[in-house]
Amino acid sequence: MKAYKELSSKELQRELSEQQNRYEAFVRLGLKHNMARGKPSPEQLDLSLPMLDLLPSQDSAGHLHAGAADDLRNYGGLAGLPEARELMGAIMGVPADNVLVGNNSSLNLMYNMVSMAMTHGVLGSTPWALLEEQPVFLCPVPGYDRHFSITQHFGIKMTTVPLTDDGPDMEAVEQQVSTNPSIKGIWCVPRFSNPTGCVYSDETVRRLAGLTPAASDFRIYWDNAYAVHDLASTGEDVGCSADQNDGAAALLSIKDACEASSNSNLWYQFSSTSKITFAGSGIAALSSSEENLAGIIRTLGFQMIGPDKINQKRHAMFLPDLDAVRVHMSRHAALIKPKFDLTQRMLEEGLGQVGIGTWTKPQGGYFVSFDGLPHTATRTVELAAAAGVVLTPAGATYPYGHDPLDANIRIAPTYPGLEELETAAKVFVVCVRIAALEQLLAG
Amino acid sequence: MKAYKELSSKELQRELSEQQNRYEAFVRLGLKHNMARGKPSPEQLDLSLPMLDLLPSQDSAGHLHAGAADDLRNYGGLAGLPEARELMGAIMGVPADNVLVGNNSSLNLMYNMVSMAMTHGVLGSTPWALLEEQPVFLCPVPGYDRHFSITQHFGIKMTTVPLTDDGPDMEAVEQQVSTNPSIKGIWCVPRFSNPTGCVYSDETVRRLAGLTPAASDFRIYWDNAYAVHDLASTGEDVGCSADQNDGAAALLSIKDACEASSNSNLWYQFSSTSKITFAGSGIAALSSSEENLAGIIRTLGFQMIGPDKINQKRHAMFLPDLDAVRVHMSRHAALIKPKFDLTQRMLEEGLGQVGIGTWTKPQGGYFVSFDGLPHTATRTVELAAAAGVVLTPAGATYPYGHDPLDANIRIAPTYPGLEELETAAKVFVVCVRIAALEQLLAG
Repeated sequence: MKAYKELSSKELQRELSEQQNRYEAFVRLGLKHNMARGKPSPEQLDLSLPMLDLLPSQDSAGHLHAGAADDLRNYGGLAGLPEARELMGAIMGVPADNVLVGNNSSLNLMYNMVSMAMTHGVLGSTPWALLEEQPVFLCPVPGYDRHFSITQHFGIKMTTVPLTDDGPDMEAVEQQVSTNPSIKGIWCVPRFSNPTGCVYSDETVRRLAGLTPAASDFRIYWDNAYAVHDLASTGEDVGCSADQNDGAAALLSIKDACEASSNSNLWYQFSSTSKITFAGSGIAALSSSEENLAGIIRTLGFQMIGPDKINQKRHAMFLPDLDAVRVHMSRHAALIKPKFDLTQRMLEEGLGQVGIGTWTKPQGGYFVSFDGLPHTATRTVELAAAAGVVLTPAGATYPYGHDPLDANIRIAPTYPGLEELETAAKVFVVCVRIAALEQLLAG
Repeated sequence: MKAYKELSSKELQRELSEQQNRYEAFVRLGLKHNMARGKPSPEQLDLSLPMLDLLPSQDSAGHLHAGAADDLRNYGGLAGLPEARELMGAIMGVPADNVLVGNNSSLNLMYNMVSMAMTHGVLGSTPWALLEEQPVFLCPVPGYDRHFSITQHFGIKMTTVPLTDDGPDMEAVEQQVSTNPSIKGIWCVPRFSNPTGCVYSDETVRRLAGLTPAASDFRIYWDNAYAVHDLASTGEDVGCSADQNDGAAALLSIKDACEASSNSNLWYQFSSTSKITFAGSGIAALSSSEENLAGIIRTLGFQMIGPDKINQKRHAMFLPDLDAVRVHMSRHAALIKPKFDLTQRMLEEGLGQVGIGTWTKPQGGYFVSFDGLPHTATRTVELAAAAGVVLTPAGATYPYGHDPLDANIRIAPTYPGLEELETAAKVFVVCVRIAALEQLLAG
């Protein structure tokens, strides 16, 4: 097969007819597949079922109400259970003292940080809602739609910066952050970025940590959602520490890097066990400097009396240390790596020759980022939907849902079974081809 | 014993010496008792331990991942699990369709409603943070300190209205709400109010529901924390419905009353199982009109992907209907009614004759409200603390911590054991006497 751009108009037309025939055959199957969101599969969730057995009522004396003041079933403990703080600190690569463990949603912690800044500023700065100039967040693109939704919801202006294989384009970031006091934050998914899967390089982390922001209340919103989510994990080589490993690159500690730059308050790091234990019933955590954390806990005291410590205890028993996390994550990897491998094979087989798209080959995380020809993403997603394959909406990886090239599509291969995934990937390939052919013929 | 105000100065002085001697004897005991917060005792928490056995891993197939789309372990379901919405609706006396079930904290839902109004207004009204005039909440007093903390945190002005045995002084409420467009809400604990224990009368509920607010975004913040928390409960006569029962008065439905007044959007009702199952690991709920709820769920979609549905499922299995709730609450009552009875007896024996204080005799809830002589509450709490008995800080039952008479003290008898409670009550009595004697001698 030749590259499409080498085909004559007549050849393009013939190819379009052929692909349309293949497409119609898929439509007739009445498929109902979903690759829209980064959801664990039921088999992945099964891995954590034994956690439900860890706190039966007859065992509770030792674990739940050892001492009246520490009764895990009662109110209190805003920063979370000490052993849960240890666990989440190990996952995020920071000491437990720098960790706050909440309920089930790290997104909720991120929303809360932005919401608190809107109404109360950050460590005494002017509340963003009262600023004369609209506050701004830098958004490396392509990025995570739920991040963009939070900032859009609060009327925070989003300015894009390109995401390279090493992380955000740091020249663009440095230039803007150092000169514009309206820039209050940058959204980052530093390891196995959503959607490209890139891991921020050590140099990128150091340059982020070394920023000299014009705004005192600028923070790096470090969503380390995939800290331990390596695809190649064997139970040995997973980790977010700076140790060498055979798989994907380790991520430099944002805490250490910020401290080395005398920017110790610059970072908020987020993580959760949503894609480690149960997506809806995990535990989420925030880590930051002690000064930031103290301010956050003061405000949390107005919001609630404490998190669900029983669920935190369950997690700490199920995953007593980072080694246990590594072993557990290797079981996830065993389930999802074949899905990523299949996705790569289908894309390579279906699109490797025709020159109408490129895609990432992540070593961890939950997504593959696909770039088609300009002006084809919306059409591709629309065609797939009509054939029963739901993809993340085109544009979702950009602020305001606006991908200026209309080229990027996020592929989420973890949820479907292998057979379903293979069919869905075939549909995707046909849709990409049709959208490209239509575009080439129109152009 | 004569009333203190009938004693001569010399007799007062002699009585003071005697009480001081008793006080010193308590100090020498080195007590460490706590009656500061409305916390369930360990024995109450034990009542719900069987809930921990309800979802072992081998049973999960039927309950947790019946269908992939409904997998309770995965993301999703912003409004909560249908069976948990049924349960919380039954407790609050509203249909499940009007209920949103969240994580473990109703305080967090209240904070969220106020925070959302600050940044986004209510159903399209001007965000309160951008109002020219400071927003105002009416606060029936004495009231709940954590309510006041939320509004104070957001710079919302708090105006007190007296709380009578029938609920807030409705003439004051009506006059202010109908004329002042800055008044955006009123904090209410309508059944077994914190701290007085009063139950709002039918007329009060109807007049609240019939308010004609000057502000379109005025809402009644109806914290129905003690909806089913009757002390006299026998397993039969508990409920928040309008049915007659032998114990405390039932509470009229705020939903029905608002609808009858064509004010269907006027109410936000909150409740939780914090004092039904586990104080830290219960489930919390918000109920409101369908229009309010739709707006809230839209915003929740920016905050999180869904609540902890496994814990919701546990609750729905443990408390499958209102009858199960009633039986369960009768077990709580069996544990805490003796503590309320003891508190009443100790207060009556210790202070019934001397005319220096009055207190409420609640039929449910978690508190007794005590009023001493003016200018004695701070001193009483200080004396008790020095003798090892921690009480809720004086003033806590008023906005800004300011009780203009310095007379009110909230007593929380549920947490200590009976023996501990008896000692603590004796200390309290001595402290009230000393503070009153000092005041009478100084005055």
